[in-house]
Amino acid sequence: MRPVDDGAGLARRDWPEGAAFIADFGEHLTGYLSFRAVPVNSVADSPIRLRLTFGEVPTDVAEPLYPYSGWISAAWLPEEIVTVDDLPAVFRVARRHAFRYVKVEVLAASRRFGVRFEAMTAHAVTSARTEPSPLPDAYPEWIRRVDLVAQRTLRDCLQTAFEDGPRRDRRLWVGDLRLQALASYVTLRADDVVKRCLYLFAGLPRSDGLVNGCVYERPEPTYGDTTTLDYAALFCVTLQEYVAATGDLACGRELWPVARRQVDCLLARLDDTLLFHDSGETWCFIDWAFGLDKSAATHGVIVFTLRRMLALADVLDCAEEVAHYGPLVDGMSAAARAQLFDASRGVYTSGPEQQVSCAAQAWIVLAGIPESRDIAQAALRNALADPAALRPITPYAYHYIAEAMLACGMDGEALELVRSYWGAMLDAGADTFWEAFDPADPLASPYGDIHANSYCHAWSCSPAWLFRARGLGRPAGEAA
Amino acid sequence: MRPVDDGAGLARRDWPEGAAFIADFGEHLTGYLSFRAVPVNSVADSPIRLRLTFGEVPTDVAEPLYPYSGWISAAWLPEEIVTVDDLPAVFRVARRHAFRYVKVEVLAASRRFGVRFEAMTAHAVTSARTEPSPLPDAYPEWIRRVDLVAQRTLRDCLQTAFEDGPRRDRRLWVGDLRLQALASYVTLRADDVVKRCLYLFAGLPRSDGLVNGCVYERPEPTYGDTTTLDYAALFCVTLQEYVAATGDLACGRELWPVARRQVDCLLARLDDTLLFHDSGETWCFIDWAFGLDKSAATHGVIVFTLRRMLALADVLDCAEEVAHYGPLVDGMSAAARAQLFDASRGVYTSGPEQQVSCAAQAWIVLAGIPESRDIAQAALRNALADPAALRPITPYAYHYIAEAMLACGMDGEALELVRSYWGAMLDAGADTFWEAFDPADPLASPYGDIHANSYCHAWSCSPAWLFRARGLGRPAGEAA
Repeated sequence: MRPVDDGAGLARRDWPEGAAFIADFGEHLTGYLSFRAVPVNSVADSPIRLRLTFGEVPTDVAEPLYPYSGWISAAWLPEEIVTVDDLPAVFRVARRHAFRYVKVEVLAASRRFGVRFEAMTAHAVTSARTEPSPLPDAYPEWIRRVDLVAQRTLRDCLQTAFEDGPRRDRRLWVGDLRLQALASYVTLRADDVVKRCLYLFAGLPRSDGLVNGCVYERPEPTYGDTTTLDYAALFCVTLQEYVAATGDLACGRELWPVARRQVDCLLARLDDTLLFHDSGETWCFIDWAFGLDKSAATHGVIVFTLRRMLALADVLDCAEEVAHYGPLVDGMSAAARAQLFDASRGVYTSGPEQQVSCAAQAWIVLAGIPESRDIAQAALRNALADPAALRPITPYAYHYIAEAMLACGMDGEALELVRSYWGAMLDAGADTFWEAFDPADPLASPYGDIHANSYCHAWSCSPAWLFRARGLGRPAGEAA
Repeated sequence: MRPVDDGAGLARRDWPEGAAFIADFGEHLTGYLSFRAVPVNSVADSPIRLRLTFGEVPTDVAEPLYPYSGWISAAWLPEEIVTVDDLPAVFRVARRHAFRYVKVEVLAASRRFGVRFEAMTAHAVTSARTEPSPLPDAYPEWIRRVDLVAQRTLRDCLQTAFEDGPRRDRRLWVGDLRLQALASYVTLRADDVVKRCLYLFAGLPRSDGLVNGCVYERPEPTYGDTTTLDYAALFCVTLQEYVAATGDLACGRELWPVARRQVDCLLARLDDTLLFHDSGETWCFIDWAFGLDKSAATHGVIVFTLRRMLALADVLDCAEEVAHYGPLVDGMSAAARAQLFDASRGVYTSGPEQQVSCAAQAWIVLAGIPESRDIAQAALRNALADPAALRPITPYAYHYIAEAMLACGMDGEALELVRSYWGAMLDAGADTFWEAFDPADPLASPYGDIHANSYCHAWSCSPAWLFRARGLGRPAGEAA
């Protein structure tokens, strides 16, 4: 990228039909673009037609968006073709975009005038009440940068609900919500939005009572006909953490039946030995990695959830109601140890092919299934060291590896994981953290075309929580 | 064109990505399109992107607009690429269009749903207070149709000012205004808009006092840096006719100095023999016909204008102020007879090449220059019969041939001209009359691409005036 002028300079240039430039707003934001288009050298004797391409990252604006090879709709591609009448005119792009860069191409204008773009302005929108504030100077610089970028990611996804990505899908997903809520409790404190999101899920279950994996807020709250079993479990976890973070017992009590219903639905899917198998009937997400077997990881999610439900029941004074969860935790843990642990390789396997994946180890560890901390640490280390083990491709799953590492005392390795994964995004120029990132293949996309990727995706904002709530990377002498 | 369903049927179909249909609103209109886009078979998990092409005539929507070969800006091409979020949604196209047909192409949508278009609605806008009403049944059917289509043309151009064409240029031009005003006095009676337009021109002269050929109303009234000498003259004619039609002497008096200034500027351009020569320094329009020499025609326009100024001065009680115009009419007429008349061919010629054109005969006749009615009639007949004579390509110039014919008693030939020219547009399927039409080459364009043509262009609405005010085609026994 070669800067050719500053912002004030833009308003001194004019552009004929066929010309193009890229405006760099210096920082990622979610919002609206406006400008004043002014004809130069003549009264405007025609409208102008522009193509505006909104870039979260340079590849969005430096490469053509077409031909598009993705398998999700090209309607997501971040461009607008607009025609502006009656120049000089202030034009505000009606649709919200997520961007740092805007490529402006003058597709058509009369040859009698050039177009000057004045007051090119990005109007950022967020529900965050405050701007991100950095960690103390005592933290290493890279940590402070990861933390700030994580907070900006959260800020730009924090709208009337926690969106997964402000470019795409602009929806509220349970899995993303948990990580956003955690980061929010220690940074932007949008507790009210967390609460709103919990009610959106609770109010839009499917007929069997499972909350949907995602809900749409607009044009009116609607469930997304996508149910995700691990996400349904995480609804309970998110509620427990919300009550813990805010003390909002009334909300906890009101939504308690919804949380219980998730657990009941999940427990009904266990086999006679109390093991969960991904039948494919209802989606388990865990990660986008191709070929991932999700049975073991989802088993871990359910146990993790049962423990949190017990904790929530204590706070809500209804422990007797779920007294049977305790023995289920033990039974499910024993089943996993007996059937999933491969003692010879020191890892937990998943599915009939006995697949080894990093995600499965993470959830098994977070569920407290390993008999000892050593076994837990070894499982994580063995999977990460095994070139044949399935590695995740999303920050979402990387988060759970880091969270699992912290849960079993691998703080140094957790920090190194964050440095090598989130830090690598920073090194690649990230202003906000991305939906998907495979360090081994940075141009990969889960959707078949990187222009369909979301480069500000809230499930990647969790390092702010890891640093602040879990003490990751905290310098000696720094207060918790 | 093959109708596949009626309007109600549209709302029963749905269209996947890649599909397209053409909606026919049955009549040309100027206005806004809206519809409700509804996802079918699934909640909408993506936006949709549509290309909307607005057709005044079938070629607009039946042929691709690109590649575009016109020399005026492609920004005029009547299409919108719009992206609609959060379905189901009501979408209203922000820009005004002129159309009967709308081609809807679903450029992109998620494969999970089809798009149903409900309540596809055209919201027509006009300043006309009433709908066109037809001529009495006693008139021949073709005349009644030409009259009605002329009125619809006027209605759709009649906005906050008289636009030349609601698709393009959407501007107020003096030449168009005169014909629109005349048609309006005998049909839709938008006298207030005529008055407003006169003041717009009067208020936006160039520095020497000549009114501009066109003015822009938006974003604020601005002159169009295009001065047209014959149009400047017609400002006076339009004012005279406005006062005659409305009796609004106050307006006549207030704008009288502006009209006088036009005449003074024009007279200053005569040579010592009182003949006008088109120096090319300031544009004369007359017609779009390629190669047209405009000196003789513009000379006729000026004499025609002087006569109307004398008439206006009488009404305004200021005849003495322009007493010198009378001798100038005589002198300019004599100069034209002496220098432009080719007695051997019985036509008036124009310019150093002694070009013979139909437009020149028309204006010379309208100016009352020929010594007798026979000479006038012969000049028009000779030019029209001469295959080498330059023929016009716009309804504007054809109007003046018809008006000239009526002025010298060629009523039957005037009617036949209207039948063969405007009637041919009807035969070609016109819902409104066109900016340009060469019966010998119906797909011709003054702009190098028929998709740049305007197919509702107000300077073609004058037959309504010819029929109603000038008695053209009036059946025996029909009241004037």
